[in-house]
Amino acid sequence: MKKEVELSKAKWLVEPGCVVLVTSGTMENANVMTFSWQTPVNNADPCLVLLVINHIRYSYELIKQNHELVINVPGEELLEQTHFVGTVTGRNINKSLRDKLRESGLTPIPAKMVEPPLIEECAAHLESRVVETFKMQTHDLLVCEVVRAVADAELFDGKWIPERFHTLHYLGGNKYGLMERAIEAHGKKTTAE
Amino acid sequence: MKKEVELSKAKWLVEPGCVVLVTSGTMENANVMTFSWQTPVNNADPCLVLLVINHIRYSYELIKQNHELVINVPGEELLEQTHFVGTVTGRNINKSLRDKLRESGLTPIPAKMVEPPLIEECAAHLESRVVETFKMQTHDLLVCEVVRAVADAELFDGKWIPERFHTLHYLGGNKYGLMERAIEAHGKKTTAE
Repeated sequence: MKKEVELSKAKWLVEPGCVVLVTSGTMENANVMTFSWQTPVNNADPCLVLLVINHIRYSYELIKQNHELVINVPGEELLEQTHFVGTVTGRNINKSLRDKLRESGLTPIPAKMVEPPLIEECAAHLESRVVETFKMQTHDLLVCEVVRAVADAELFDGKWIPERFHTLHYLGGNKYGLMERAIEAHGKKTTAE
Repeated sequence: MKKEVELSKAKWLVEPGCVVLVTSGTMENANVMTFSWQTPVNNADPCLVLLVINHIRYSYELIKQNHELVINVPGEELLEQTHFVGTVTGRNINKSLRDKLRESGLTPIPAKMVEPPLIEECAAHLESRVVETFKMQTHDLLVCEVVRAVADAELFDGKWIPERFHTLHYLGGNKYGLMERAIEAHGKKTTAE
């Protein structure tokens, strides 16, 4: 069952560097795109996640309209949908009055705080607003503030439980690595620099 | 045995979102710090990797001096060293004329193109120069151009081989997830948007 995640802990949903499915647009006209290029950029409050996006993406057109998006976390069971969504554009699908999200077999459900839908089949959702954009030559860096986060409490207890939930990590081509096991360090903890 | 990696393919060394050990400074006065917050920001040429660093870090003082660093990729066998390096500052260690890199039990060896050392025990090294910096409130985004990359050819053949090499993915506290298995999608590949 999905439960609210405190915003000060939401970054742990993406910190392992897993691929995420980003929904944009609205419930009526949604798009979805796979991102491997994401990282937290702040420790706790506000929860900020950076997404790197090519200027030419259809998702980016939609994001620029309402500055909102949802970061959804898929696991191993969504491999085919994740790859499909990462390799097919929603631009032409939308022109024919269907959208890529539904085309992929994923289920859009309404978010609480933003317009783009959540993807029901994903294990976690980070409803976000773009608060800053840094421009690069072909890509932009979108700093997204997470305004609401929920996750499956069986799979995430403040940390992902890799023995129960296998996040996807992009290796290239059609290959993805799976995070399957957790290990624990025993050294001392003070302050990193 | 470590071999040169074409720069157009070097991003695949960090794309899975693994933690990396970043060396800074010089062979004589080196520092090392664990980064979980990293992502590629360009597809191929030049190979650009983004690192997110807090303003107060000792590593950042060193990076600002010569604008060079090396991104080293550790695996499961370097768990304790990775955690140590991520939780202890090099600032005071250096003042007593020892450095954190040697203190951690890791072995510095000279790089070819930049001043900071490589870490011999790591499976891959990306010698890099900072080419752009975006400023945020507490953290800066360092865009690093990779100028030379090498990797263990038994473990990386253009993609990491998770069955042979387990990258570390930070879960929080003293816990790390391991990427242990690769899976392959069979859907069609066209253009992502």
